[in-house]
Amino acid sequence: MKEVIETGDFDFYPIENHIIDSSTDGKKVEIRWDDGHLSKFHFLWLRDNCPCCIHPDTREPIFNVVSITNDLLISSVSVTQEGFLEIIWSGESHTSYFHPGWLRAHCLDLSKKTFPDPLTWDAKTKKEPDRFNWNEIISDPEIERNWLCSLIEAGCCITQNVEPSKNGLVQVAERIGVIRETNFGLFFDVEAKIGPDTAAYTAIELPPHTDLPTREYQPGLQLLHCIKNSVTGGESILLDGFRVAEEIRLQEPEIFELLTSVPWDFGNRSTITDYRWKTPMIHLDKDGKIEEVRVGNFLRVPLQVDFDLIEPMYKAYQLFETLNQDDRFKLRFRLEPGECLIFDNRRVLHARDSFDSSTGERHLYGCYIERDELWSSIRMIERRNRQKIINSSSNE
Amino acid sequence: MKEVIETGDFDFYPIENHIIDSSTDGKKVEIRWDDGHLSKFHFLWLRDNCPCCIHPDTREPIFNVVSITNDLLISSVSVTQEGFLEIIWSGESHTSYFHPGWLRAHCLDLSKKTFPDPLTWDAKTKKEPDRFNWNEIISDPEIERNWLCSLIEAGCCITQNVEPSKNGLVQVAERIGVIRETNFGLFFDVEAKIGPDTAAYTAIELPPHTDLPTREYQPGLQLLHCIKNSVTGGESILLDGFRVAEEIRLQEPEIFELLTSVPWDFGNRSTITDYRWKTPMIHLDKDGKIEEVRVGNFLRVPLQVDFDLIEPMYKAYQLFETLNQDDRFKLRFRLEPGECLIFDNRRVLHARDSFDSSTGERHLYGCYIERDELWSSIRMIERRNRQKIINSSSNE
Repeated sequence: MKEVIETGDFDFYPIENHIIDSSTDGKKVEIRWDDGHLSKFHFLWLRDNCPCCIHPDTREPIFNVVSITNDLLISSVSVTQEGFLEIIWSGESHTSYFHPGWLRAHCLDLSKKTFPDPLTWDAKTKKEPDRFNWNEIISDPEIERNWLCSLIEAGCCITQNVEPSKNGLVQVAERIGVIRETNFGLFFDVEAKIGPDTAAYTAIELPPHTDLPTREYQPGLQLLHCIKNSVTGGESILLDGFRVAEEIRLQEPEIFELLTSVPWDFGNRSTITDYRWKTPMIHLDKDGKIEEVRVGNFLRVPLQVDFDLIEPMYKAYQLFETLNQDDRFKLRFRLEPGECLIFDNRRVLHARDSFDSSTGERHLYGCYIERDELWSSIRMIERRNRQKIINSSSNE
Repeated sequence: MKEVIETGDFDFYPIENHIIDSSTDGKKVEIRWDDGHLSKFHFLWLRDNCPCCIHPDTREPIFNVVSITNDLLISSVSVTQEGFLEIIWSGESHTSYFHPGWLRAHCLDLSKKTFPDPLTWDAKTKKEPDRFNWNEIISDPEIERNWLCSLIEAGCCITQNVEPSKNGLVQVAERIGVIRETNFGLFFDVEAKIGPDTAAYTAIELPPHTDLPTREYQPGLQLLHCIKNSVTGGESILLDGFRVAEEIRLQEPEIFELLTSVPWDFGNRSTITDYRWKTPMIHLDKDGKIEEVRVGNFLRVPLQVDFDLIEPMYKAYQLFETLNQDDRFKLRFRLEPGECLIFDNRRVLHARDSFDSSTGERHLYGCYIERDELWSSIRMIERRNRQKIINSSSNE
C-alpha cells in the first residue's frame, strides 16, 4: 500500500490530475495541473502538513508548530519523476514530498462537497419520511450513502425490514456508530409504563419536542424502532424545526430575535437526577444560519429571567409552540413493526398522538447516536470508493 | 410527603419565610414576605407553573401554553390559612395554589447560586490539583459537594485511595453519572501499545491538548485513573486553557480575535473511522466569556481556509501553542496508583512527559462523562440537604 503511506494519512487519493509545473518565491508554491487549474500553497501550511512528519502507527501529525523558526523558507520546489511535489526547506534540513492526489484533494480553492445541504420541508412539500430497505443498505454502499445522507438532507428517514427486536435496533445503530447512553439508559423502551419517569412512557399525547433539550448537548440522532404497534391511535408525527424557525424569521422577525437570543430554562427532574440547561430555543451559527432548535413543553422548568422579559418571551414561545402544533408543518404516519425511524434530534421535532392501551400494544425501542458518527460513516463510504478506484487502476 | 406534591416537582422547599400580604392588578401579583422582601410574579408565568397542572407520575408540566386565551387574567389573589398563595383565574375555571417555599425559591429577583464560579490558575497560583479522599467523599455529602465543585472552580482534582483497578474507576465515574462512550470505547487503557491508534497509546511526549476536539461535542469531563506507574518519566501535566486564553486576550487582542472567530480543522482518522470538526480554538459565549477551548496539535487535519488567512492563522496558533507549552502555566505532578485524576476537558488541557517503557509499567484507565452529570449530582446533594431540613423540622 505504498499509495497510502506517501499521503500521510489513512485515506486514498486517486491521481486524476498531474502537476506539470511548479514555482516558488520561498513563501508560497504555485503549481499548474494538466487540466490548467492553478493551485497556491503557503509554506507554513506545507511544512505543517509534511506527510513524513507523522507517527508511523497512528499517522497523527508530530510536527510541532512551536518549532518553526523565523528563517524557515522554501529553498526549492520541483516535480519528481513519480509526479510528486518535492520541497527542499531552508532554515531546516528537511525535504517534503507531496502526493499529487493528496495535494489536489486539499487544494484550497477547489470546492470539496462530501455532504448534501439540509433541505427544509413541511406537510405540503413532504408526505412521509423516505423509506430505505435494510437489506439493500447493508449490501449496496450507494444505497447506504443515500440512506445516511437523507438524515442530513431531510433530517429523517425510515429503515424498513429491520428485525422487530432489540437486536434489530442494535444492528442499525452500530452500522452508524457508537450509541450515546443517557440517564434513560443505553436503550429505552417507549411504551405505557407503570410509574413512568417521563411523558414518553405514558399513553398521553406527546407534543412536538426534541429529546433532552435539558442537556448541554442535545443528542444528535434519535432512533425509534417499532417492535409492536396494534393500538388505536399512537400515530407518529415529525416536523422540521428549521422550517418552522424560518417561517418565524420571515413573518415575525422580532419574535425570532427573542427566540434566538434569550435563554429559556429546560429541565428534567426525577427522584434521583436533576438535569437543567439554560439556552435559547433557536440557535444560529455565526452566519445567522439556523443550526439547532430546542423544544419541549414538558421539559421546561420555571423561566428565570427579568420580570419585564416574561411577557414578550411567553408571547414568542406561544407563537413558536402554536406553529409547532400546526398541521401544515406535520408529517403524520404510522410506524409498523420492523420500521426504524431515525431523525436529527437537533432539527426535527417528534410527537405522538395519544393512544388507547386497552386496544393493543405499542412498543418502540430507542437510542441516541451523535451526528459525528453519521458523518464519519459517510466519509468512510467515500474513502472505500476512492480505495476501489485505486485498486482497480492498479489491476489494469 | 404532602410537602413535595404541593410544589409540583420532586424537589424540597423548606419554608423559611412566610407571605404576609398579596395583591394583584389582574396581570401581576405582588407579595410581601415577613422579612420585608417584595416579590413580583407575572400572570403568564404563574399560570404556566401552576403546580397542579403536571402529570401525577412524571411531575412534568402538561399545561399547554397554546391554550392560553386572550381573556386569561387573575381574578383574585390571597394567602390561605396554610400560608399558600391562592390564585383564582378568570377566563378559565381554575384555581392555583403556590407553596411559599417554592415561590421564594423561584423569586426572580433573588439570586440563587448553586455552583461556584470558575477560578482560573497558573503555575504560580496553583501547585497541584486539590486532592480528595474517596472514603470521605462517599461518607460525607459536604466533602462530596466540595469534590464535585472543585471540578467547576479549578476544573480539576485528584481522588485518592480509589481501588487501582477498572472497578475503582467505575465506582468513581458512576458516583457522578452516565459514562460517555466514544470510538475509543466505554473505557480506554492509556499505555504504550503495539499498533496504537492515537498518540496517547504510545510512550511519546503528549503535547497539551483536550481530548476529542475532533467531535461536535468535546467530552465534558475526563477521568484518568492510575493503575500502575513505575516508569521513568511519564509525569502528568495540566494547564488551565481559560487562563492561557485570558492571557492572549490581554496581551494580543488581534490574535485572540482570530482564535475565537476563525475555524480550524480538527480530525481523528483511523482505518475504520474519520471524525472531523471545524471550529475556532477558543469559544466565547454571548457575553464574551470564554466557555471552551479546543486544542490538539496531533488532532488536526489540513486547515481549509482562504489562502490569505493561512499566515495570520498559523501565527495565532503558534502563539497559542507556545503558551500552552510554557512552564509558567503548567502543573506537573506524578499520578500514583489509586489516584484518579478528573478534569474539565473543555477547559483544562492535559499533557504527559515521554516515558521509558523499559523502566517499568505505566497504565492509566480512562473514561468520559458529560458535565450535566456533575451538575445534576451537585443539585441532588443540595436537594437532599433541603429534604433533611424539612424532615428535621417535621420531627420537632
